[in-house]
Amino acid sequence: MKSSVITLLTDFGTQDGYVGAMKGVILQHAPNARIVDISHDIQPYNIRQAAFALLNYAEHFPEGTIHVVVVDPGVGTHRRGIVLRCKDRFFVGPDNGVFSYLLQEKDVQVLRILENRLGHPISNSFHGRDVFAPIAAMLANGDDINPVTTPVSDPESFFEPCELINDSEMELTVVHIDHFGNVIFNFSKSDWEHLNWTRDIRLKLKHGFVQGLHNTFGEVGEGRVLMMWDSSNFLQLAQNKGNVSKLLDIQVGQKFRLVHRK
Amino acid sequence: MKSSVITLLTDFGTQDGYVGAMKGVILQHAPNARIVDISHDIQPYNIRQAAFALLNYAEHFPEGTIHVVVVDPGVGTHRRGIVLRCKDRFFVGPDNGVFSYLLQEKDVQVLRILENRLGHPISNSFHGRDVFAPIAAMLANGDDINPVTTPVSDPESFFEPCELINDSEMELTVVHIDHFGNVIFNFSKSDWEHLNWTRDIRLKLKHGFVQGLHNTFGEVGEGRVLMMWDSSNFLQLAQNKGNVSKLLDIQVGQKFRLVHRK
Amino acid sequence: MKSSVITLLTDFGTQDGYVGAMKGVILQHAPNARIVDISHDIQPYNIRQAAFALLNYAEHFPEGTIHVVVVDPGVGTHRRGIVLRCKDRFFVGPDNGVFSYLLQEKDVQVLRILENRLGHPISNSFHGRDVFAPIAAMLANGDDINPVTTPVSDPESFFEPCELINDSEMELTVVHIDHFGNVIFNFSKSDWEHLNWTRDIRLKLKHGFVQGLHNTFGEVGEGRVLMMWDSSNFLQLAQNKGNVSKLLDIQVGQKFRLVHRK
Repeated sequence: MKSSVITLLTDFGTQDGYVGAMKGVILQHAPNARIVDISHDIQPYNIRQAAFALLNYAEHFPEGTIHVVVVDPGVGTHRRGIVLRCKDRFFVGPDNGVFSYLLQEKDVQVLRILENRLGHPISNSFHGRDVFAPIAAMLANGDDINPVTTPVSDPESFFEPCELINDSEMELTVVHIDHFGNVIFNFSKSDWEHLNWTRDIRLKLKHGFVQGLHNTFGEVGEGRVLMMWDSSNFLQLAQNKGNVSKLLDIQVGQKFRLVHRK
Repeated sequence: MKSSVITLLTDFGTQDGYVGAMKGVILQHAPNARIVDISHDIQPYNIRQAAFALLNYAEHFPEGTIHVVVVDPGVGTHRRGIVLRCKDRFFVGPDNGVFSYLLQEKDVQVLRILENRLGHPISNSFHGRDVFAPIAAMLANGDDINPVTTPVSDPESFFEPCELINDSEMELTVVHIDHFGNVIFNFSKSDWEHLNWTRDIRLKLKHGFVQGLHNTFGEVGEGRVLMMWDSSNFLQLAQNKGNVSKLLDIQVGQKFRLVHRK
Repeated sequence: MKSSVITLLTDFGTQDGYVGAMKGVILQHAPNARIVDISHDIQPYNIRQAAFALLNYAEHFPEGTIHVVVVDPGVGTHRRGIVLRCKDRFFVGPDNGVFSYLLQEKDVQVLRILENRLGHPISNSFHGRDVFAPIAAMLANGDDINPVTTPVSDPESFFEPCELINDSEMELTVVHIDHFGNVIFNFSKSDWEHLNWTRDIRLKLKHGFVQGLHNTFGEVGEGRVLMMWDSSNFLQLAQNKGNVSKLLDIQVGQKFRLVHRK
């Protein structure tokens, strides 16, 4: 029997036993599934945070892995439940933008879940347990999900690319602030390589700027602020042994200007 | 060899490695057990929160599952350690009311653990590691626990039913506030069905009331407060995309009056 | 195929998917490994907290277990990555003192990881994913790690023993404050046994003292402060159903005098 990996990312916290209920349903239907917790501490309803986290772990798992993401402020409304297939991994969750980064990939198949075909009662407030967990279990068992899904072509996405203002200026948006306070922008190493700029760049701050591109925290003194690639190859503003988002009071969504000096 | 599921619910947090110690002991004694984290974030000593969470996940797990619950302010005193058997699932933990809801079920068998028969030293402050984990491992291995237990008939329970005041008024108590701020009452769908009231009901608040019974958040506007059944079929006061317990400053234990208008 | 246990202790939090990435890499390389979460809530960069937690769980796991600890403020600098072998368990993480207690044991073998021999690109900010997870997977698979390591003899340690001031006074340091506010000292039951003191001891506080050595919380009234052995046999200052570290405003690192009255 198959023993697929099912990962879980939610904003449920764990105190209420809701995540426990999802795990129970999965193990009830797919006794050999291997459940892997990613996080249940996504900020309540913070779809963007979940979308970015997914980017950090999804591709590191083996092929066949089923990634379940339930950050679902619209549960019980007309928002759709979906299954995505991309690079031989599956993704299950609400169609509310939580898969925005994933949808930038080529060859993503998207299916809508037909809840009324699942053959059991479905609560209006807990599709994690009643819809997404059972679908994940079906996928883990290698069951055909065609009878309970239908293709869709217009999944929700909030993806916002960085914007070239002129030859030497790029507008960046803060897409994520991590646990250590690192500030991550919508600007990847591959965006950078397309630009063909030298490393003589500045990020403008409210007061002053940060200059250059470093390889690692340790290249600057303790407490100093630097720019470097984060571990998923996005540009990040970081502070050696510090929390730069607190230091400079930076929020997700804030815009910054990156300037190239020729 | 059996590979039973053992779930863990505690108020230990994870920072000290105490939960880790329990997991190590389980895997030492039952190498094939499948450990499933429910939560370690129960508020310290909050027996009621743990009892309610258990209600949300216990029955969704497969038969044979062993649910370990360690919220144990009385560890090292004369409080008993117990094993319950109900609907072919096992429950292991202190006898302090944490299994109150479970004890409302028919056909619950309760056994007291005889610590001194376990055959190893037992610390005075950590029965999770030294008593409950070893018992869970024995159950996972299919071992006979009769030699280390004895039946009891008077387990602790704090269960408090809702109270019918008169033909058209019911007093409800807040039994749980969840991660999203939903306020959950000691009033189930089956209590409701026995009442035979119409949906023309009001829940009295300090200022004003909430009227009617909705099916889902999306039936009211964003920010509006509503009554609906929660995912375990208890009555809940909720707010569409909001936190109603904060909005109305509601605490666990608070009493409310539900009024039927004929 | 082997199915070794790999435990994970980090200060990553879970919100960013970084721990998820480590789990993915482990399962990619060692599909049968059994990943066990210890904690991801170690305070950012708090090496001492991680070191003490490790002491609480490491030895309870079966032989062959691989304990991964990633609290790594020096990632991307010259600090070394190491593998330790002790009592047939493996330990993987940065060489920054996080294994200080372990290094007090006899027969600890220490190997330095040669990152450039791992044969894949290594980010400067995430050795948890790119170095420690792959090494853990190799160990889980039973692979020979000699080609990618070299012995070292000078691992970092911050271990600080208690200090005998005179015949009847011992200076203790607070090494840990746990989730319940218990205050734990660098003074073990075996230290105590070597002293050969009677139980007529006092711990001096800012105002007054705590007297005697108790067996369990329940021996004193609710709210009373006591000394007892913690579950790993270190001396702890505790409060029956209370949080003594808050009550007396005690911090890790603080020094106290233990006095014997002959």
